[in-house]
Amino acid sequence: MRIGTAYYPEYHAEAEWDRDLARVREAGIDCIRFAEFAWSQIEPEPGRFDTAWMERALSACQRHGITAVIGTPTATPPVWLVEASPEIMPVDDSGRRTGFGFRQHRCYNAQAYRAASRRVVEHLAITFGKHPAVIGWQIDNELGGEQKSCHCDLCRTAWHGWLAGRYAGIADLNRRWGTAFWSHTYSAFSQIPVPVRSAMQLGLKHHPSLTLEWLRFSSDAITDFCQEHAALLRRHVRPGAVITTNNDSFTWGENVDLRKLFSGLDVVGFDLYTQHAYEIAFYCDFMHDVLGKPFWFMEYDTSSPKLTGELDAIAASGECSRLFFFKFRPFPWGHEQGTRSLLNITGTPAPNHAVVAAWTKPARTLPTPIARRVGLVYDFDSSWATFLTGWSGIPNDLTYPRGMIDPVYRTLHGLGERARVVLRAADLHDLALVIAPWLVIHEQELEDALLRHVHAGGTALLTQDCFIKNRDNVYREQLSRLYTEALGCRDCALDHEPAGEHALIRDVAYGAGRIVMLSVKPDAAAWSFWLGRLLAKN
Amino acid sequence: MRIGTAYYPEYHAEAEWDRDLARVREAGIDCIRFAEFAWSQIEPEPGRFDTAWMERALSACQRHGITAVIGTPTATPPVWLVEASPEIMPVDDSGRRTGFGFRQHRCYNAQAYRAASRRVVEHLAITFGKHPAVIGWQIDNELGGEQKSCHCDLCRTAWHGWLAGRYAGIADLNRRWGTAFWSHTYSAFSQIPVPVRSAMQLGLKHHPSLTLEWLRFSSDAITDFCQEHAALLRRHVRPGAVITTNNDSFTWGENVDLRKLFSGLDVVGFDLYTQHAYEIAFYCDFMHDVLGKPFWFMEYDTSSPKLTGELDAIAASGECSRLFFFKFRPFPWGHEQGTRSLLNITGTPAPNHAVVAAWTKPARTLPTPIARRVGLVYDFDSSWATFLTGWSGIPNDLTYPRGMIDPVYRTLHGLGERARVVLRAADLHDLALVIAPWLVIHEQELEDALLRHVHAGGTALLTQDCFIKNRDNVYREQLSRLYTEALGCRDCALDHEPAGEHALIRDVAYGAGRIVMLSVKPDAAAWSFWLGRLLAKN
Amino acid sequence: MRIGTAYYPEYHAEAEWDRDLARVREAGIDCIRFAEFAWSQIEPEPGRFDTAWMERALSACQRHGITAVIGTPTATPPVWLVEASPEIMPVDDSGRRTGFGFRQHRCYNAQAYRAASRRVVEHLAITFGKHPAVIGWQIDNELGGEQKSCHCDLCRTAWHGWLAGRYAGIADLNRRWGTAFWSHTYSAFSQIPVPVRSAMQLGLKHHPSLTLEWLRFSSDAITDFCQEHAALLRRHVRPGAVITTNNDSFTWGENVDLRKLFSGLDVVGFDLYTQHAYEIAFYCDFMHDVLGKPFWFMEYDTSSPKLTGELDAIAASGECSRLFFFKFRPFPWGHEQGTRSLLNITGTPAPNHAVVAAWTKPARTLPTPIARRVGLVYDFDSSWATFLTGWSGIPNDLTYPRGMIDPVYRTLHGLGERARVVLRAADLHDLALVIAPWLVIHEQELEDALLRHVHAGGTALLTQDCFIKNRDNVYREQLSRLYTEALGCRDCALDHEPAGEHALIRDVAYGAGRIVMLSVKPDAAAWSFWLGRLLAKN
Repeated sequence: MRIGTAYYPEYHAEAEWDRDLARVREAGIDCIRFAEFAWSQIEPEPGRFDTAWMERALSACQRHGITAVIGTPTATPPVWLVEASPEIMPVDDSGRRTGFGFRQHRCYNAQAYRAASRRVVEHLAITFGKHPAVIGWQIDNELGGEQKSCHCDLCRTAWHGWLAGRYAGIADLNRRWGTAFWSHTYSAFSQIPVPVRSAMQLGLKHHPSLTLEWLRFSSDAITDFCQEHAALLRRHVRPGAVITTNNDSFTWGENVDLRKLFSGLDVVGFDLYTQHAYEIAFYCDFMHDVLGKPFWFMEYDTSSPKLTGELDAIAASGECSRLFFFKFRPFPWGHEQGTRSLLNITGTPAPNHAVVAAWTKPARTLPTPIARRVGLVYDFDSSWATFLTGWSGIPNDLTYPRGMIDPVYRTLHGLGERARVVLRAADLHDLALVIAPWLVIHEQELEDALLRHVHAGGTALLTQDCFIKNRDNVYREQLSRLYTEALGCRDCALDHEPAGEHALIRDVAYGAGRIVMLSVKPDAAAWSFWLGRLLAKN
Repeated sequence: MRIGTAYYPEYHAEAEWDRDLARVREAGIDCIRFAEFAWSQIEPEPGRFDTAWMERALSACQRHGITAVIGTPTATPPVWLVEASPEIMPVDDSGRRTGFGFRQHRCYNAQAYRAASRRVVEHLAITFGKHPAVIGWQIDNELGGEQKSCHCDLCRTAWHGWLAGRYAGIADLNRRWGTAFWSHTYSAFSQIPVPVRSAMQLGLKHHPSLTLEWLRFSSDAITDFCQEHAALLRRHVRPGAVITTNNDSFTWGENVDLRKLFSGLDVVGFDLYTQHAYEIAFYCDFMHDVLGKPFWFMEYDTSSPKLTGELDAIAASGECSRLFFFKFRPFPWGHEQGTRSLLNITGTPAPNHAVVAAWTKPARTLPTPIARRVGLVYDFDSSWATFLTGWSGIPNDLTYPRGMIDPVYRTLHGLGERARVVLRAADLHDLALVIAPWLVIHEQELEDALLRHVHAGGTALLTQDCFIKNRDNVYREQLSRLYTEALGCRDCALDHEPAGEHALIRDVAYGAGRIVMLSVKPDAAAWSFWLGRLLAKN
Repeated sequence: MRIGTAYYPEYHAEAEWDRDLARVREAGIDCIRFAEFAWSQIEPEPGRFDTAWMERALSACQRHGITAVIGTPTATPPVWLVEASPEIMPVDDSGRRTGFGFRQHRCYNAQAYRAASRRVVEHLAITFGKHPAVIGWQIDNELGGEQKSCHCDLCRTAWHGWLAGRYAGIADLNRRWGTAFWSHTYSAFSQIPVPVRSAMQLGLKHHPSLTLEWLRFSSDAITDFCQEHAALLRRHVRPGAVITTNNDSFTWGENVDLRKLFSGLDVVGFDLYTQHAYEIAFYCDFMHDVLGKPFWFMEYDTSSPKLTGELDAIAASGECSRLFFFKFRPFPWGHEQGTRSLLNITGTPAPNHAVVAAWTKPARTLPTPIARRVGLVYDFDSSWATFLTGWSGIPNDLTYPRGMIDPVYRTLHGLGERARVVLRAADLHDLALVIAPWLVIHEQELEDALLRHVHAGGTALLTQDCFIKNRDNVYREQLSRLYTEALGCRDCALDHEPAGEHALIRDVAYGAGRIVMLSVKPDAAAWSFWLGRLLAKN
């Protein structure tokens, strides 16, 4: 695992670059990440580019034996773009358009924003795509972070087009969503609302099929933006340069389907701020499994008092090939101002600078990832459907991912296990135990794989809501094979049944294997009981 | 007490109607309630009606010996109406107009909505008014539920007209409201604001006289809508068919004066979801006493584990003549999707189906309502005035009704008592004990009746805030007879006085009776002490 | 200390004035405060004034030997002004304009409001400026209370002008704010946003340099309004009449720099509602020290059960020359309706009427203010910067002032000490101990005075964040003299350092004195430990 760091020449006086980069090198850090918020510095006026400073910054890097990852600066549209095209500013679910003064102030469906983004990214790609110091490209920054979903008129039109592409016609949509309910029958896609919050005194949520599609649409808009830039970069950068983006884990939301986001990118990049070992391990497993290969840790905190141990653990997993600290030098100004970094605010090394230097001293090769006999099924559709049982429209209600991390993964981690994160049916093979809590949404391929796994002698640990809805977020009126074939149900699923001891609903043999179904909200003790027992047996 | 159920043919495949209705009948249920959200199915395009499916549904009912209550579908304006007349969509107290995607999206003062509502209701009344299977009509659904109060320009005009009709002139309003305070003096009714929330940093509430009138205005708008439809139905339906509406108890608000709402309707209908026996009993007493005759329980949950006992208790009170379950078959889709009903999601009977079948087996006649020696005064004006001491503008702050239910009625219920709910002065007769907590608003007729009751030997249990304001929500500068005559006060009411033991303020004889006044917020123990003592004595 | 009271002839029938004023006098009260919300009564129509009632009210006062303070009524623009000039209504940080129905509904930058305000104030000043009964003038009421900050287009323009006046140019602003961060570089002042709340899903705060300036701008707008009226009154009122305004302490916000607000006024006026002796004492010290002379307590509650003791304590401090009760007679109607006052709602004396009468019986002269050996540095910039580390934009997050009062001042008060509130460098002299918690913002003059104080033998009690930012709310990259000279730091400030026992960071000698630096959030026990120890030593 190699160590990099965010270091932003664009924020500091050029006279200080050499001093700072020398200190980067002294810490055994050999790569910097920069420019991802520097649109104003790169294109100070519409169409007038200034990249000479980047040239000089890269030269400075080279002088110190340091490589660079360039971030494309599209998360920070300059004020000149906002002035010229106010329609690029996103609109929230109360219909209010945001003002300037933040970041991620962009509607992904605004063509003015898309065009300006392409122009600046292409300029960077052409200018630095073959620069020997540039080893990688980060597209934008934490896509879907601050800005998750926009409700403007441009999005409305895009939404209608997106929907039209997914249904055989409006009658098909009416039938699948069950819009007869409450007279929501539509005669045209153009009638389907963008899910703006109710302005009535009792705030109802929107229709659950609509909102699940809306989340997919919003995720797709972000993915489409990312894929467009990936393709554009691919045309210009030298072979071997890595193209990625940094997702921001699920701390502030879980609104982008990471399978789609990273499809076609070279590695998974991600940011995480936590000091819980089990949470770090969960994300390392997850991010590795999105593409099934080592990922880049794009942001990691500098201030942990147990940094050495954390780096050791991440490196030992063999799942992470590069880790970048955020950040080398403090920001005195701006939204992220503060004094914690690998340098002090005065520019001198902070205590963890020496810790990093010591850690990087021995040469470290990437070990083979540890073998994992446990699978943890993670399904974005099920997560979003779980979330949508609540009242608001955007998944920063994190019931599903939080539950996956703690208690489920935390209990696993306490038992000394790591999990393969099963993100698609094809990942479900060669496992002893498959855990699939809250897998509400039924997908035939996944059900088949799960039953095959059990039949061949594996164990499955499920919850009572397994496969009770279809992909339209509609309850299934026909029982799944899981119920009819494996659990022996005749006329209803088990969702009515009261739980027994340790949250148990059913514990049955199926083929050569075993299925344990728990209630919907087992407590930490129940997870501990069952995971302990099933892993001891396996 | 006869048992009915909500069952919606419009939501299910016609091929399944006979199977479902057979199961309705197997449970001993002989009446279904349907169509109250089916505007789109009844009028798929403006002015084009399709009621053939209703004919067929009623025929199916007849085949199974089942009658029906038709709900008018006006709580779900179709998207074509919203498209043609966007001004029917209500505006909240921040001035934001709601979008499509919910229910109750209608401004009661929008003529386009009123006209379209009349048209569809009249069409149903003419078509099915004399149908032998149709025994009753439910107007709309839970009027004043999601949508309580609208702040649009149409409402502004209606509000000004409504106010003008209640005051001798603007000077009269200024005088009665005391608008000299803070220079709120108006020179025309048109200047009086619709109470939109403050947009200043410290959010003040609106003027308390204005807001009390606003609540009355909003309640009246709902009542006017209901009365218009009652009259319209009356013209077309056969004599004997029952006209009602289903209010939704006070769980989500208490913004409609039920005395006015049900004036002229045939029975009170209401919906309730609780498993507290004392709460069910409170509402049964209340709903019976609104019109002084047995009511219809329009929605009752299907999933209670102690259903038999609950049905027994409701039937034994003699206050309820029909009870409808909500609902017979689960909704797989839509805002109320879920799996709990008398059928399973797969269409087979759920456990409580057999419980209902057993309960309905013996023929049950309506017993004489139990005698009640305790009166509980419930005053909407006082409730709203209590609420308005808070900061927001719509009564879903439920201090008053919640307090009435628990601790007051809960304590009564624990002592084995039922109460007559005194909703007007004329109800206050032939009672041993009258409880009137938080009766803030003075009404002379009610005060006279209360004092008469005590003078003749009855007991009254009051709180310290009794009759201290007038109907304009203004503190009275002259003492009530209650204070001067009965409590012996000379120069001020008792609202300053600190409470003694068991929250006692005064315990005095008056005529042949007794008045006990407690502090404004007696705790449950104080209620228990006084109700126990006063009921033992009586 | 003389006793006055709010009593509003404009709210009561003229026939009752003599009765009420007689009771005012019976309580030993010799001054009333009135008219500050009477714009509608003074100017019932645009430009038509009616002050005859004020003449008669003042005559009534004179008949009873009572003087008066006139409040200018500009906090309550009449509905006719709002109708004629809707642009005077303020706009909140979501861009919503407030409606009529409250008070303080005015944008300080709306010329229509400013012109109408000048007109009514000047009319009052000319009419009553030399009236023998009028001893003082209160400008407006609780400036910056409900309405703290407006985000309308008029304010936007004023904001840009205000900023332009404070920077050498837009490049200077860019450099000082560090707008390179996140591409916030501006090319014109007109691009700088009014800090409207983010409408994105993760609500980021605005740029910390921008928001600190915005708070200053909003405070300045209020101050400018007040100063304009002070100058206008000064031209017309007789010498000796006192010109003041009543700030509303920090209970509901701390958004006006009181040093600026009272600059040029004759005395500090303020309102406070609390029964904590330490809080009363804190504010008395504070308000005295704003101008360095006795203040007027403009509103004090009437209902305390320990009123005599409270009046004794306030009088004994020698810091308050007049105290006005709020209020003599209850308001039956309106936003502040209630029954607590020195009269009952029926007009007869309430219990504390006799308490006040007894207290006012002995003649009371103003004692010399008690000597204070402790200084407490209070810095609005530091308070606002502390606040701005949170997420919203207006300082009703009261971390700093609340912390100053409790635990700091409360601990002091428990030790029998009073403090001089140090509001500027010049106040820092002749003190034994100077306490300066959370003095985040560096000002060279204040640092010099603080170090001088210690060097000469004084003690300073600081927190770890002392002087780490500059007045642009930017972290300082160079160490202060405090750190380099006094605390012996070489390469970084002490903000990284973990605290020892009793929250201690450093305890060092400097010159003949001593500096104790604590962590940023010492608990009450730590404050108690250090204040006890340092005051015992001194």
